[in-house]
Amino acid sequence: MPKISKKGESMPASPIRKLVPYAEAAKKNGIKVYHLNIGQPDIITPPLALEAVKKYDAKVIEYSHSAGNESYRKKLAKYYQNTGINIDENDMIITTGGSEAITVAMMSCLDAGDEIIIPEPFYTNYNAFALQAGIKVVPIKTTIANDFALPAIAEFEKIISPQTKAIMICNPNNPTGYLYSAIELESLRQIVLKYDLYLFADEVYREFCYDGNSHISCMMLKDIEQNVVLIDSVSKRYSMCGVRIGALISKNKNVVETAMRFAQARLCPPSYGQIAAEAALETSADYFTDVYNEYIMRRNYMVEALNKIDGVYCPKPKGAFYTVVKLPVDDSDKFARWLLEDFEYEKQTVMVAPATGFYASAGTGKNEVRIAYVLKIEDLKNAIICLEKALKVYPGKVVE
Amino acid sequence: MPKISKKGESMPASPIRKLVPYAEAAKKNGIKVYHLNIGQPDIITPPLALEAVKKYDAKVIEYSHSAGNESYRKKLAKYYQNTGINIDENDMIITTGGSEAITVAMMSCLDAGDEIIIPEPFYTNYNAFALQAGIKVVPIKTTIANDFALPAIAEFEKIISPQTKAIMICNPNNPTGYLYSAIELESLRQIVLKYDLYLFADEVYREFCYDGNSHISCMMLKDIEQNVVLIDSVSKRYSMCGVRIGALISKNKNVVETAMRFAQARLCPPSYGQIAAEAALETSADYFTDVYNEYIMRRNYMVEALNKIDGVYCPKPKGAFYTVVKLPVDDSDKFARWLLEDFEYEKQTVMVAPATGFYASAGTGKNEVRIAYVLKIEDLKNAIICLEKALKVYPGKVVE
Repeated sequence: MPKISKKGESMPASPIRKLVPYAEAAKKNGIKVYHLNIGQPDIITPPLALEAVKKYDAKVIEYSHSAGNESYRKKLAKYYQNTGINIDENDMIITTGGSEAITVAMMSCLDAGDEIIIPEPFYTNYNAFALQAGIKVVPIKTTIANDFALPAIAEFEKIISPQTKAIMICNPNNPTGYLYSAIELESLRQIVLKYDLYLFADEVYREFCYDGNSHISCMMLKDIEQNVVLIDSVSKRYSMCGVRIGALISKNKNVVETAMRFAQARLCPPSYGQIAAEAALETSADYFTDVYNEYIMRRNYMVEALNKIDGVYCPKPKGAFYTVVKLPVDDSDKFARWLLEDFEYEKQTVMVAPATGFYASAGTGKNEVRIAYVLKIEDLKNAIICLEKALKVYPGKVVE
Repeated sequence: MPKISKKGESMPASPIRKLVPYAEAAKKNGIKVYHLNIGQPDIITPPLALEAVKKYDAKVIEYSHSAGNESYRKKLAKYYQNTGINIDENDMIITTGGSEAITVAMMSCLDAGDEIIIPEPFYTNYNAFALQAGIKVVPIKTTIANDFALPAIAEFEKIISPQTKAIMICNPNNPTGYLYSAIELESLRQIVLKYDLYLFADEVYREFCYDGNSHISCMMLKDIEQNVVLIDSVSKRYSMCGVRIGALISKNKNVVETAMRFAQARLCPPSYGQIAAEAALETSADYFTDVYNEYIMRRNYMVEALNKIDGVYCPKPKGAFYTVVKLPVDDSDKFARWLLEDFEYEKQTVMVAPATGFYASAGTGKNEVRIAYVLKIEDLKNAIICLEKALKVYPGKVVE
């Protein structure tokens, strides 16, 4: 039997996925499991997007343009123009989700052996995409003690090497919910300019900014227009993760032309998803106001409730719908499994994502979990009660 | 400005794409261009697949399972069982088109520097997928003189090296329309077994077999069950190229588990496409009979008409809807461009795919083009008349 590849052997299995069998077993035993572990919002998809798909009356579902339908790209360009990002339909490639935008950006800009600096904790799958491209992820540590603020320029300079070709940020951040400030982005701008690096900006949560803070896109930073590659997706914005529509956007023509060759090889992004995404651009402001109010209510409840629990610290995230929480536990992987395997409170338990999976530095995040506040408030309340009860009896509890 | 990657620089721009601006210019000048260059069938998508999407009434378009919806996989497994391929829903990963199945298969089974042998001419994008994975494509030549039959075992053995990890075939073949015989597949089986290689079998045209020939899947070959990775797609079978649904299938658990990690990183295949693909499995036999009759009529007409033209040779393809044709021209790239730029017959011309793009060996295919018979018969007739008229006046005509 031939061997699988070394690359395949190295592909990380998600620490969340490892927990799935335990969650399934718990459910079989009649336990209700509150899923705080996933970024699948319960918010409805805008009905006009669903309607557009129902009304789509093509007789043949043909290949679309490899860069995506022109009508969609033109309307999408207007969406960005309205947010202050000056691009047109030729500055973008519509991709199969944000995931494909990241892999194509990495392959277009970096070669095997090149390094990309990413503030950790970061979205686990960045590791997988980098591994596919043969790229080395160099983490730069952010800490819950600082609410996951961007490290100082000097910290970046310590790890920049001749192989460093790019910095990647996710803003607002998954998993921390952190929203980068104008001052932090100015620091990033200076580093990028000084070392002529690419800046990959994953801004898929751009609509989810709270407390009066507005989102500053890396595409708005001056004098680094040729360095920035914007990664976007409609998955979270319109709660339609399954349509698999994202975008790679850059003012750098070389990057877009190169990305286009990768896009041509895989033929085109999904046709139905493009129909839904194009229609979704007409979503009313009311929809977003409702979504905003819902998340603010959830977040405020969650932050307050979690911080009342002994030994727990939850920063107040300014964006996205995640937070990384410090728990008084020995090992968040063990704790997450124990919650599913050995704990119940009134036939209920909680599934959380151990933060270890979001750190590239080994041994980090052992007393942290990521919580996605994607559940309606009653469920969120019950979930946090479960967590509180669990922490009282968890055998691996650590008292500081 | 930071440089793009060497990998990006090496990504081949499709020779067909290079012709697109000339086709567009011709159309602007009022010329009707018959597209014999693309594999986008004009056949209608089965209406029941389109209806299923219209009736899909989810309120949230959520992520699906990373391996694809279980209901779809179960029904798809039955489809294969009915063709004599003994697999179940756990032997497959639903992918975003056949394209993603190929990249995932390559990354799961081969490392950078490994070699894959592919009979040429072959589907151009195999080059792009191999380049992405850092894999070296080693072509083994098939020739129009032999109607593109598989080379003898001895020819394979000449190019097998310690780096050889896989052989890839497309059966029925794009671009040649060649259908591998039981004897040829037995040869392949022996080589695969002797050298313990992977056999990637791209069988996306499996339904398109003519003249009473039936398709023999590589999944049916004995004693190499652990070596075979089947690449499939619904794009051509149901004429729904835009839904982007394919599959990676193998009895080798290591391969499927490894592929699953790549699948998890990109989250899931498109939701709407899966709905269409699942419904399409109920397509009636009548649909396929109609499609079969249509293609047979087109093929027979085309082969006869082309072979009547002086200096032209068109083999009679037994599968798919392509043929590679020998033309009395100096350079098929120049000829294809000349057709669009400098030729017209009664305000009509033809776009063909130069065969050079399908050969990895430089300088090969200069007197061949690929023709896709995806046009209705009247258009096909006019297209071939154009080609005949063009060959009479083309300045680079070569008389043997």
